[in-house]
Amino acid sequence: MSKGLPKRSEDYSLWYNELVKKADLAENSAVRGCMVIKPYGFAIWEKMQAVLDQKFKETDHSNVYFPIFIPKSYLSKEANHVEGFAKECAVVTHYRLKNDENGGGVVVDPEAKLEEELIVRPTSETVIWSTYKNWIQSYRDLPLLYNQWANVVRWEMRTRLFLRTAEFLWQEGHTAHATKQEAIEETELILDIYANFVEQILALPVIKGRKSESERFAGADDTLCIEAMMQDGKALQAGTSHFLGQNFAKAFDVKFTNKDGKQDMVWGTSWGVSTRLMGALIMSHSDDQGLVLPPKLAPTQVVIVPIYKGDEQFEKISAVAKDIQSKLRAKGVSVKYDNRDTYKPGFKFSEWEMKGVPVRIAIGPRDLENGTVELARRDTKEKQIANVDGLDTQIVELLDEIQENIYNKAKTFQEENTYKANTWEEFVDIIENKNGFALAHWDGSAETEDQIKEKTKATIRCIPFDTPEEEGTCILTGKPSNKRVLFAKAY
Amino acid sequence: MSKGLPKRSEDYSLWYNELVKKADLAENSAVRGCMVIKPYGFAIWEKMQAVLDQKFKETDHSNVYFPIFIPKSYLSKEANHVEGFAKECAVVTHYRLKNDENGGGVVVDPEAKLEEELIVRPTSETVIWSTYKNWIQSYRDLPLLYNQWANVVRWEMRTRLFLRTAEFLWQEGHTAHATKQEAIEETELILDIYANFVEQILALPVIKGRKSESERFAGADDTLCIEAMMQDGKALQAGTSHFLGQNFAKAFDVKFTNKDGKQDMVWGTSWGVSTRLMGALIMSHSDDQGLVLPPKLAPTQVVIVPIYKGDEQFEKISAVAKDIQSKLRAKGVSVKYDNRDTYKPGFKFSEWEMKGVPVRIAIGPRDLENGTVELARRDTKEKQIANVDGLDTQIVELLDEIQENIYNKAKTFQEENTYKANTWEEFVDIIENKNGFALAHWDGSAETEDQIKEKTKATIRCIPFDTPEEEGTCILTGKPSNKRVLFAKAY
Repeated sequence: MSKGLPKRSEDYSLWYNELVKKADLAENSAVRGCMVIKPYGFAIWEKMQAVLDQKFKETDHSNVYFPIFIPKSYLSKEANHVEGFAKECAVVTHYRLKNDENGGGVVVDPEAKLEEELIVRPTSETVIWSTYKNWIQSYRDLPLLYNQWANVVRWEMRTRLFLRTAEFLWQEGHTAHATKQEAIEETELILDIYANFVEQILALPVIKGRKSESERFAGADDTLCIEAMMQDGKALQAGTSHFLGQNFAKAFDVKFTNKDGKQDMVWGTSWGVSTRLMGALIMSHSDDQGLVLPPKLAPTQVVIVPIYKGDEQFEKISAVAKDIQSKLRAKGVSVKYDNRDTYKPGFKFSEWEMKGVPVRIAIGPRDLENGTVELARRDTKEKQIANVDGLDTQIVELLDEIQENIYNKAKTFQEENTYKANTWEEFVDIIENKNGFALAHWDGSAETEDQIKEKTKATIRCIPFDTPEEEGTCILTGKPSNKRVLFAKAY
Repeated sequence: MSKGLPKRSEDYSLWYNELVKKADLAENSAVRGCMVIKPYGFAIWEKMQAVLDQKFKETDHSNVYFPIFIPKSYLSKEANHVEGFAKECAVVTHYRLKNDENGGGVVVDPEAKLEEELIVRPTSETVIWSTYKNWIQSYRDLPLLYNQWANVVRWEMRTRLFLRTAEFLWQEGHTAHATKQEAIEETELILDIYANFVEQILALPVIKGRKSESERFAGADDTLCIEAMMQDGKALQAGTSHFLGQNFAKAFDVKFTNKDGKQDMVWGTSWGVSTRLMGALIMSHSDDQGLVLPPKLAPTQVVIVPIYKGDEQFEKISAVAKDIQSKLRAKGVSVKYDNRDTYKPGFKFSEWEMKGVPVRIAIGPRDLENGTVELARRDTKEKQIANVDGLDTQIVELLDEIQENIYNKAKTFQEENTYKANTWEEFVDIIENKNGFALAHWDGSAETEDQIKEKTKATIRCIPFDTPEEEGTCILTGKPSNKRVLFAKAY
């Protein structure tokens, strides 16, 4: 903890990497591209999981578990799907090691070669739809509303902790429906759950919209998404919800008898959020002193640090601290009393700042006399003297205020850095100099999209739901367009 | 649901397989040896997870996540460990597929061969201790008390749903300590958590003890375990807690500076329970009509079935049912009102019986008049007429009673089928005819253990903690022994 972070303004990327390490969230493992999620990072992820899991269950989804391995032939059944995932998948070819007869240690046993290679799941549509085939006969069996919390592997060449890792954790929902309309409604329901979750819990405003065709999930007819702005003005896709049409039903021959006694193909959706959300959380709120956590995700919401000389002072301060702790716990606040005698208060202050604890209480000898404490907010760094009397109520309110303030700050930042681009020059200026989001007209063609990406690295993050119909001309080609879409560089 | 189960007495093994399917718990997947855990089965597993996770956290353990892949060279660093796992592991050799130039579909890209093969974790000691090396410098860094919930893969040739699958879900705890004593105490603490959990939540009595050397975990100095008796008299290992000594610390060079400023090797433990517990749960309590669930693990504790003719009766009964439901929910009981109009009451009764719902309430027209319901217990199949008035309190008590009764029944069964064997003939009779557990003297040698296994298929399940020191002679060799050990056939 002795050394601080690089400044965001000087090297945003290095700042992020160092923050993830210094706040004890995660680290790279010995296995290329795979991360170790450390206890503090995992505690935050667990809080995210708990909230989302409850929201899924409240909307009648159940959890299930499907195998980690996918037979190669399954992956190949949906043409777009295999195209999207074949180039970056871990392939299991053998099921045994043996001692090398020539003394070379333990080697793969060539006699234990699998008849068919297995792919470590990059996503589970194929293995799930091959199973749904057996679970669905009649309209009475529908809908199937299932989700799983799982690890997946995509062999990314350039990885960054949380943002892009070869293995990551996620939830993947896979639903099956009797009608197109019902599947579309499910896709929208989930997008709303994601958006509300990210805004209310991660305190991060998002833009809801739909992907352009070239950014769609491999195998979907439509991909809805939420996009968030990081502090460097780049976009981060925070969740996707796919309307799969009948693509996987067709690939795996999943039919049902409808109410009229006729055979129909099943409609599907899939949707997921991942440990990438940890990256979004870290990047969007934190500062040069460390992590800033919204209270709803902070494993420790309040830390109490005693400032004392000698055992007698320590005893008296501890009595007050423990009383505050128990009152706050009774109100559902998680509180740590940092009574370590091996570190000085200043060191503790820095450590908890680095770890983003929303509220710090310091208690010194003068506070003892006055019946007060020093109350410090992590988000604004404001300090105030507060009375011990009524402190619990004050802190509960303060935590709500912090949650709201963090959201509002991010919302203001997003709004201030989102621009309308009406010409190519304006567009380039927004993307390359202002480092913002650009709302611009686009002629709707994949070629134009590609060219814009090639020239500026900006991609269409989404076609936002809430931008109005509006006559205009494509910023690159000048062709007509009736809606602005959202462009940005992205993680 | 139309067909019943095979009888336990006729074909226990088939009964189990059919029960797992008919109660909608799990099924085999298209991938050899891997299972699909269905929503109802997964809901039970989630309840197990929630209880255990809380117990771990109450004893200061935190959750973490380590990579699914283990470099081949890591697995090899601990000699016994690699010996134990190399013969049954899934090996990733490539990281990409490509389109076959000769039109053979999608094939492994030979150019995407990994420099070093990766093993899909069969357990995570090696990858974790290689990381602990970086996390531990001083005695101040100890202990590390970490756990992860994860999937693991062991390439078993003969698999059975839940009991033995190529992929399974589990938790694996991995702790590091400054002293041998502290590590041993951790091993014992966890064994107690496991034993209490299985007895109090799964309602399954266990025998605590230690494994013989040949049954120890590959890489451990000592393996403690809990063993449970299934209804066919076979044993099922329900959890293990390993004292690793300094074996993994030595393999990965994990040292720390102790309080005296000297370098010491770190001491370790590891421990786990898995989805095997689902197998134990199913096998131990269920009957020829289906699953019997202890209330503490039942996703639905009470089901209400209306018996009616016509809409008017249905409305009136529904009003009573919903009132009962909301009162029970207010007391924390999970209740389903089965108001499906597509099935008759008899069908519903069988279905909920198959799924092991502890309490069934039926409400008919006569009940309406009398202010009563019919109350049926799944465990004893006893029925009684109960007043609607006070029903919620009665059911809360009944659920406790059922939990206790299921445990007591299993305890009595275990005691009645555990015998002391003093001669080889008695031993063989117990194992082969009585189908029970045999407490017998053993000379302590691995050779004798092997011979007994070869002759009878019985293995030493554990050296129980609670059997007294007692002079005797080995049932096979007649050599002296001072303690009886527990023999049984096992899953």
